[in-house]
Amino acid sequence: SLNPAMAVDIDRIAADPTDIPGPITRTTPDTVVVELETRELVAEIEPGVTFTYMTFNSQIPGPLIRTRVGDTVDLTISNHPENTMPHNIDLHAVRGPGGGAEDTLVMPGETKRITFKVTYPGLFVYHCAVPNLDYHISAGMFGAILVEPEEGLPAVDHEFYLGQHELYTNGQTGEGGHHEFDFEAMAREDPTYVLINGEKYAIGPQGYNDMQMNTGETARVYFAVGGPNLFSSFHPIGSVWDEVYPQGAILSDPHRYVQTTPVLPGSAVIATLSSPVPLPIKLVDHALSRVARKGCLAVIDVQGE
Amino acid sequence: SLNPAMAVDIDRIAADPTDIPGPITRTTPDTVVVELETRELVAEIEPGVTFTYMTFNSQIPGPLIRTRVGDTVDLTISNHPENTMPHNIDLHAVRGPGGGAEDTLVMPGETKRITFKVTYPGLFVYHCAVPNLDYHISAGMFGAILVEPEEGLPAVDHEFYLGQHELYTNGQTGEGGHHEFDFEAMAREDPTYVLINGEKYAIGPQGYNDMQMNTGETARVYFAVGGPNLFSSFHPIGSVWDEVYPQGAILSDPHRYVQTTPVLPGSAVIATLSSPVPLPIKLVDHALSRVARKGCLAVIDVQGE
Amino acid sequence: SLNPAMAVDIDRIAADPTDIPGPITRTTPDTVVVELETRELVAEIEPGVTFTYMTFNSQIPGPLIRTRVGDTVDLTISNHPENTMPHNIDLHAVRGPGGGAEDTLVMPGETKRITFKVTYPGLFVYHCAVPNLDYHISAGMFGAILVEPEEGLPAVDHEFYLGQHELYTNGQTGEGGHHEFDFEAMAREDPTYVLINGEKYAIGPQGYNDMQMNTGETARVYFAVGGPNLFSSFHPIGSVWDEVYPQGAILSDPHRYVQTTPVLPGSAVIATLSSPVPLPIKLVDHALSRVARKGCLAVIDVQGE
Ligand SMILES: [Cu+2]
Ligand SMILES: [Cu+2]
Ligand SMILES: [Cu+2]
Ligand SMILES: [Cu+2]
Ligand SMILES: [Cu+2]
Ligand SMILES: [Cu+2]
Ligand code: NA
Ligand code: NA
Ligand code: NA
Ligand code: NA
Ligand code: NA
Ligand code: NA
Ligand SMILES: [Zn+2]
Ligand SMILES: [Zn+2]
Ligand SMILES: [Zn+2]
Ligand SMILES: [Zn+2]
Ligand SMILES: [Zn+2]
Ligand SMILES: [Zn+2]
Ligand SMILES: [Zn+2]
Ligand SMILES: [Zn+2]
Ligand SMILES: [Zn+2]
Repeated sequence: SLNPAMAVDIDRIAADPTDIPGPITRTTPDTVVVELETRELVAEIEPGVTFTYMTFNSQIPGPLIRTRVGDTVDLTISNHPENTMPHNIDLHAVRGPGGGAEDTLVMPGETKRITFKVTYPGLFVYHCAVPNLDYHISAGMFGAILVEPEEGLPAVDHEFYLGQHELYTNGQTGEGGHHEFDFEAMAREDPTYVLINGEKYAIGPQGYNDMQMNTGETARVYFAVGGPNLFSSFHPIGSVWDEVYPQGAILSDPHRYVQTTPVLPGSAVIATLSSPVPLPIKLVDHALSRVARKGCLAVIDVQGE
Repeated sequence: SLNPAMAVDIDRIAADPTDIPGPITRTTPDTVVVELETRELVAEIEPGVTFTYMTFNSQIPGPLIRTRVGDTVDLTISNHPENTMPHNIDLHAVRGPGGGAEDTLVMPGETKRITFKVTYPGLFVYHCAVPNLDYHISAGMFGAILVEPEEGLPAVDHEFYLGQHELYTNGQTGEGGHHEFDFEAMAREDPTYVLINGEKYAIGPQGYNDMQMNTGETARVYFAVGGPNLFSSFHPIGSVWDEVYPQGAILSDPHRYVQTTPVLPGSAVIATLSSPVPLPIKLVDHALSRVARKGCLAVIDVQGE
Repeated sequence: SLNPAMAVDIDRIAADPTDIPGPITRTTPDTVVVELETRELVAEIEPGVTFTYMTFNSQIPGPLIRTRVGDTVDLTISNHPENTMPHNIDLHAVRGPGGGAEDTLVMPGETKRITFKVTYPGLFVYHCAVPNLDYHISAGMFGAILVEPEEGLPAVDHEFYLGQHELYTNGQTGEGGHHEFDFEAMAREDPTYVLINGEKYAIGPQGYNDMQMNTGETARVYFAVGGPNLFSSFHPIGSVWDEVYPQGAILSDPHRYVQTTPVLPGSAVIATLSSPVPLPIKLVDHALSRVARKGCLAVIDVQGE
């Protein structure tokens, strides 16, 4: 009953989890320039299964914006002329109307520019917030902005950036063809897919296999949940979170040796891990039917002895 | 397929979020007298859509009961003679059978009185707890009792009180007519409405527009979730929670600069915010389909320059 | 439409909540020997309603494994020859491939043995993790391993151990007959039963009535959530959690006087309570339709004056 799979506009909608800015070494505030282009693109959820995504910069999650408390962000958002819908951006790091959404509404072909100061530290979600914002987020329009504290974050050997969200379609999970968005399934909070980086098993041996580390090293994971509706019970199979900042709130004391941490829709977490032995660490939402049946998995490859 | 909308018994079922007792300035324990009347009332969820609510004191959430650690509460509960069902009250601030429910069961026309001492601080939910308690809560029977610590809470410029819960009916969201309760939808945890203060968009320009503050001021939000089944990913659009006491537990250290905080069914949160700029701050459950499709929104109006 | 109820293989699938190892008094590391036998068994969910469970040691939750930081666990797992499926064990207390799952895969009639060291404290879930792991967990294959800190936990008068999980079947809740597993209901996260210790109202006057304490005494509850998909809003009706270690993470500061605490699927909690008055304390998931309609309840009997 689905239409045939469509020709894809892009080979991979998943963001590379290692393609992020490095730690900030500055000790004074600066201006961070950010350019976001909204794109509506056909891509594969899994082989033979296509969907018309909406994205920031043609990737899910949108790029990690990296700042330091006191910085000014100079943000330009453009809506690609071939798009069909208005878009904007609400950043949870911003105090202001709609978190910036009011001043960034762009129609296809349009560009807007705002500047704002980041005044409190943490890892914050951003997302499109036009009417039917749940549809835009479900289609892929979310990402994260990191606001480092003045002293920075402790040094680690590796940093990875991932995002979970859920997709509501008129097809069955895994059914070949082009999946159309299903507003009624979204109202019921009954997703067809629950995904990390927008594709089934996007990050690991079957996709981008870039989360690599060695035994004895440390890694920090920046994890954003777009939702629009489900939270993640975020767990590293074969390991434990050494330190967790619940909901991305850096100024609180971290919780230590946490097996599973809640990451709410419209929220994020900063968590670190390490391993004394080589293994694949499988990052999952421990609501395990989402892993076994709906595609929610990302793998860190730990090499060593 | 719905019956026609019924004549309403009351114009607004939503409680005014500013109609609450002020901070306690006493430095010694006292007796707090509370009178609750249970009422079953037809009112509108939104224009043209009626439902037979159950309430404490004809409002949702029920009145904020304000006490101080060491106080004695002298509580009278009556069941209005025109009601059709038994009711009672379970307060999470009470150690005792059913949190008070055993001693407060009242049939229509009946009144009971209990006294109890509050011995630990926090913001606690109360709710009806007769058989089919999930139905009574879903119909509106929940509220909060605040137990201030001996030293009180830090001074703020404004205090607001709100409650979220979900409604399960035999109609579609927004369908005109009288909605009957749907027990099967409740068992599936598939609500027709998710509401703040019992009505769609009850608090804001379309309803009670009483949550007013100025730039530079501080506000404290007392937020109770009745459920009966869903938790809230509580977020202030255009702002951030400056301080949060998760699940209303005041004696824990607050978490700071939190974008989104979980408030469980049968739980509550105390959270503060402020704004340097004028804007509407939209309080939402960041499970955004509940905002976009099921009515869950309350607006704080921040005026200034 | 269900087949008739089957003859049961075992009278009670629920674990006795007091049948657990006592506090560790050693001050040096030791080897803890654990023997687990996986069993597939027909038992009653409630009278007249049967299901083919899968278990560790013929009980739900599986036995509490009690260790101290620095201990070595010598674990043998066998798959009973009359079983029909492979099984294994993933322990969240273990850093290694699949949390031990890779090295413990056993076919019917097979036995395997592993040793591992526990290096960080907390209460951790273990569960079967073969393909279709959500089915195995839903059928009952989960439990907890406690890793005490070196100094032990504070003394209490009683310790109780419980586990919540949800069951997805082709029948209606309460429908007499033999319920078959329903994979589609699991994918929708729409359970037929939500249970503590694997049976409706298993622990209390209608079942094992072994959670007994006196007024003025303290009790510690070890509570594991297998899921596979739902979290518990864990609340003691008629009382409050005096101290909670969220998600079982002992090294964090406890949260105090908490009404309701989230316990995620694949997570656990350590929480203490007490009562100045005699009463039944009803432990529930405060998503109350699971209590009123799906069997989720366990009762502590507090005696005294
Ligand atoms: Cu958009
Ligand atoms: Cu948001
Ligand atoms: Cu009632
Ligand atoms: Cu309650
Ligand atoms: Cu198994
Ligand atoms: Cu697990
Ligand atoms: Na679908
Ligand atoms: Na669902
Ligand atoms: Na309905
Ligand atoms: Na559901
Ligand atoms: Na927002
Ligand atoms: Na069923
Ligand atoms: Zn958009
Ligand atoms: Zn490395
Ligand atoms: Zn695990
Ligand atoms: Zn009632
Ligand atoms: Zn003011
Ligand atoms: Zn905390
Ligand atoms: Zn198994
Ligand atoms: Zn005793
Ligand atoms: Zn209660």
